[in-house]
Amino acid sequence: MQVLVSKLHWEDFSPGRVFEHGPRRVTREEIVGFAAEFDPQPMHLDEAAARGTLLGGLSASGWHACGILMRMCTDSFVLNSASMGAPGVEEVKWLRPIRPGDQLTLRATVVEARTSKSRPDMGFVRFMFELFNQTGERAMTLTTSLMMSRRPA
Amino acid sequence: MQVLVSKLHWEDFSPGRVFEHGPRRVTREEIVGFAAEFDPQPMHLDEAAARGTLLGGLSASGWHACGILMRMCTDSFVLNSASMGAPGVEEVKWLRPIRPGDQLTLRATVVEARTSKSRPDMGFVRFMFELFNQTGERAMTLTTSLMMSRRPA
Repeated sequence: MQVLVSKLHWEDFSPGRVFEHGPRRVTREEIVGFAAEFDPQPMHLDEAAARGTLLGGLSASGWHACGILMRMCTDSFVLNSASMGAPGVEEVKWLRPIRPGDQLTLRATVVEARTSKSRPDMGFVRFMFELFNQTGERAMTLTTSLMMSRRPA
Repeated sequence: MQVLVSKLHWEDFSPGRVFEHGPRRVTREEIVGFAAEFDPQPMHLDEAAARGTLLGGLSASGWHACGILMRMCTDSFVLNSASMGAPGVEEVKWLRPIRPGDQLTLRATVVEARTSKSRPDMGFVRFMFELFNQTGERAMTLTTSLMMSRRPA
């Protein structure tokens, strides 16, 4: 696999470094479309049914929010990096409903960077991802570690 | 909100209880379609590019796997329960690639059930969700707690 040296490598992800992206508008059509395919619960499909739920109105599936966050990460820095993917997710918190028309902004903060004992050509970069809505409220947080190639010597 | 007493309530989710669902086939078209919208990295879009990555071939985005797992949960028991949603996710592990043509099976195990101190009408049910492929390998695990209405007295 060709790795362009100009891409961001493990060495570029110093703890405290922040990447931002957005705003990205969420439409009713995509909320309902995602839910119909992956999470067909009333609060993600129908305004009237959603009013009687904890969310208090039509809101995106939490998994849709994860997908939107991933896409904003890809567009922000992942495609311009030597990322090798992630082995999983440490934690997700859905803090506030995401409504039709919301404008989401991503903040990705490098929390920790460590080398790999078994693979000297890569390291781990632990991120705290935050999604904010248009009023500055935090709608979601997600913590995970990406595997990242180290810069060739 | 009308709650049908015949639905599964918090009291029905005893630790150790297992729900199973599937198999559910995953197609190349849906893998590429999901990736194009939410996770446009080469290993989820293009067979040739994917061969040079850690996944070793075209594989579903981990977020797509989460969506499939959620849909299998909804079809298995969530829509037949008094679930009020989840505040987040405790942990996700992507253990093996999910390939075009894979047949996935879900196993949902109740790990813990506890009441809510602040809301006596609901409780929490902690689940361990596992996705297996057609050869019985565990492709993914996910741990989370659902908020569940208690059965009216």
